[in-house]
Amino acid sequence: MNYKMIRFIIGWILIFEAIFLMFPAITAIIYGEKRPLLAFMLTVLLCATIGLLLVFRKPRNTVLYSREGFVIVSMSWIVLSLFGAIPIWLSGAIPNYIDALFETVSGFTTTGASIVPVVESLPKSVILWRSFTHFVGGMGVLVFIMAFIPLSGGQNMHIMKAESPGPSVSKLVPRVRTTALILYSLYIAITLIQIILLLFGGMTFFDAINTALATAGTGGFGIKNDSFASFSPYIQIVVTVFMLLFSLNFSCYYLAFRGRIKDFFNSETRCFLTVVAVAIALITLNITLSGNYATVDEALRHAAFSVASIISTTGFATEDFNLWPALSKSILVLLMFIGACAGSTGGGIKISRLLIYGKNAKNELGGLIHTGQVKKVSIDGKSVDKEVIKAVNTYMAWYILIFVASLLLISVENHDPITNFTAIAATINNIGPGLELVGPTGNFAFFTVPSKLVLIFDMLAGRLELFPLLLLFTPSTWKK
Amino acid sequence: MNYKMIRFIIGWILIFEAIFLMFPAITAIIYGEKRPLLAFMLTVLLCATIGLLLVFRKPRNTVLYSREGFVIVSMSWIVLSLFGAIPIWLSGAIPNYIDALFETVSGFTTTGASIVPVVESLPKSVILWRSFTHFVGGMGVLVFIMAFIPLSGGQNMHIMKAESPGPSVSKLVPRVRTTALILYSLYIAITLIQIILLLFGGMTFFDAINTALATAGTGGFGIKNDSFASFSPYIQIVVTVFMLLFSLNFSCYYLAFRGRIKDFFNSETRCFLTVVAVAIALITLNITLSGNYATVDEALRHAAFSVASIISTTGFATEDFNLWPALSKSILVLLMFIGACAGSTGGGIKISRLLIYGKNAKNELGGLIHTGQVKKVSIDGKSVDKEVIKAVNTYMAWYILIFVASLLLISVENHDPITNFTAIAATINNIGPGLELVGPTGNFAFFTVPSKLVLIFDMLAGRLELFPLLLLFTPSTWKK
Repeated sequence: MNYKMIRFIIGWILIFEAIFLMFPAITAIIYGEKRPLLAFMLTVLLCATIGLLLVFRKPRNTVLYSREGFVIVSMSWIVLSLFGAIPIWLSGAIPNYIDALFETVSGFTTTGASIVPVVESLPKSVILWRSFTHFVGGMGVLVFIMAFIPLSGGQNMHIMKAESPGPSVSKLVPRVRTTALILYSLYIAITLIQIILLLFGGMTFFDAINTALATAGTGGFGIKNDSFASFSPYIQIVVTVFMLLFSLNFSCYYLAFRGRIKDFFNSETRCFLTVVAVAIALITLNITLSGNYATVDEALRHAAFSVASIISTTGFATEDFNLWPALSKSILVLLMFIGACAGSTGGGIKISRLLIYGKNAKNELGGLIHTGQVKKVSIDGKSVDKEVIKAVNTYMAWYILIFVASLLLISVENHDPITNFTAIAATINNIGPGLELVGPTGNFAFFTVPSKLVLIFDMLAGRLELFPLLLLFTPSTWKK
Repeated sequence: MNYKMIRFIIGWILIFEAIFLMFPAITAIIYGEKRPLLAFMLTVLLCATIGLLLVFRKPRNTVLYSREGFVIVSMSWIVLSLFGAIPIWLSGAIPNYIDALFETVSGFTTTGASIVPVVESLPKSVILWRSFTHFVGGMGVLVFIMAFIPLSGGQNMHIMKAESPGPSVSKLVPRVRTTALILYSLYIAITLIQIILLLFGGMTFFDAINTALATAGTGGFGIKNDSFASFSPYIQIVVTVFMLLFSLNFSCYYLAFRGRIKDFFNSETRCFLTVVAVAIALITLNITLSGNYATVDEALRHAAFSVASIISTTGFATEDFNLWPALSKSILVLLMFIGACAGSTGGGIKISRLLIYGKNAKNELGGLIHTGQVKKVSIDGKSVDKEVIKAVNTYMAWYILIFVASLLLISVENHDPITNFTAIAATINNIGPGLELVGPTGNFAFFTVPSKLVLIFDMLAGRLELFPLLLLFTPSTWKK
């Protein structure tokens, strides 16, 4: 294990966190929030000092293997969250450190599950920091850092692999650094477009920035307690569209940009759009027939918003879907697990992983009767590597195990089963709200500290797609 | 596809069903039940006539491949159920054929989910037929037939493989026919011991036979509406012990009988007993602390009964566990999925399948960092065949798919999510009762016909472990 390189990169993480923290600090100055300003500035100093100490000596041996990749990614995210929670706690916005940590992990992992009962009561600087964590967490902090710090050659591919969502990662261009730059440029560009469109809808500048940052990361921290219920239909529709846009693989935008429209509509994009369309149609039908809405228009708008919000794993809400009929709720819970496309900022199991999983299951079923003739799994005409199929199966097994273990652990608290089940589903899939007590009108404050720690683990496990966090706790990772 | 052999074996199935139906017919004579007697005799005639016509000409080509094995098994179970439902319907006990079919499939698949509101109102002959279907379905009807009808050499191994529960099947002795005979002898012997022990407890002869048949098949159809709540603690304890005994792999009894005690306590048995012990301990603690019971003794007895009932997938009840705290309910729902040992009469995913699944996931996780060094999965010192691991992964994928699809389909009815979720869990795992509306004090009568058909499919899919039923509907199975 190359401990020196781990130390070095964690140092850079802290330096960048200090830079990120400047934004809420400036916000605190603008809005004259004294205690928050002090809290943010103190944390900037703390991060910068420790960070600089850690990067002071660049390691001679910069070789990284996949295990270093996994360890660096999981440790970075833990460090990022531990320090990111400090100003929220010191500012007095959330007076308990574990609660502040929950909120910060929820932010970085783009979950959006909150323990804050009334969002409007938070200082503006803390609201901006919450939204900003979504933005940084969405595309990945290490992807960001790799665009800036000089790491030699192919070493950083292991880091990118470990941080990027989806069953397999491919570079857009030969250099990882350039790939990271392209991805972040696209990310920032689409976010800016959303800000402009929101401003056109009459949103304030502060609200528009926060909304766009939280949409971009498919996070879900809102600026109002009723999320998007009281915004205009125009704003709701803009947010719906951008939640879906941020659910697509960013490589697809790059390819479309370079004229390869066919590659934009690859099987993952097509499958994603089909699932979205079918879900919206079924829910619209279901909530219209059950008399929840007077007009089909209204039902369609709320159905589209909710479907986009859940499948993108953002977690915004215009309506309390807790009150919808069983079929609609079942569909939404199913979408929680499906999640967005690989290489997007969304969470969940991911469309491409499920495509590989399903196609493999179909082929293997045929193999039971035609022994030795199992068809190879192929996506978009390319056959999927055996190792990727194995990794998908392994992912699903660990996913089930973590889900079940978490469910048992939080069941000790004796809440109703729907609350327990959807609390886990909403955190491990990085969505935010679930049903019942953790529904769109509820929050996660009522959980005890042990349960909150379980949910923190699930949020991190979900965002990092299980393996980095699991390997951090596997003894063989640390063996020489 | 060897259609003639399929025809031939289906014929034998009907002949044996005619023989099985004699038992309830005799019961109808004893208790003077006129209309049921007529119903059973008519069905005996019907089955015997069609059966004899189908077996009249023995096919010259008796070669069977694995696809014939799967098709024969799934078609046999469907035919068995379709005809088995006729007397229940004609007797007037359940005046609707789909309901009667639901009850019969629930019987043969050893589920025990009932649509009968008051069991005591059923004719005795129908009650016996219900219990008898559990007994036949538990060990497998084709396994039974193979002990009697002469099939050449290794051909019938494909049938045995397709019908027997668990990830892999091994013969106890070189001949499949002798293996089938040994298994059924053991099965009948243990059932007889249970009958005697129940009689000692003061049960009537009729009640003891029915209880033992339903326990042996890990079925769950009761003789009273309150299941085992009103029976003495002695009876409850006897049933608890036998539910667990019928959850173990029958091969283990044979090996123990031949002095190989070490093989009796193989890793599957040890894992099963550990899960049972831990579950009983946790639930006892949970329901005692939450004040559900006055004494630990009482709590322990109900916890042990419920755990044995659910993990064995029997479905008897002494208490309405719907009223227990969340942790206990979560544990019971988890046990629903785990299920019994391979080669037992119990359902669920099976301990050995989960062992392989878990060990493989553990090894593959290590493989992510030590590329090309994935450890082989081994159980009891023997390395597990790659094909078995693949089949386990394929099983899990289809299991999830069928579960989710079923859940969406029955959600259309707009019952609460716990009812929907546990109705599917209770049928696909062949347990019987779930929670809420389908809890121990409820039944499945309220579902509409389409939902009942979904649940019938799930019960059959669960008992036959998915593949036979799925392959029946796969076009490539039928290709030349």
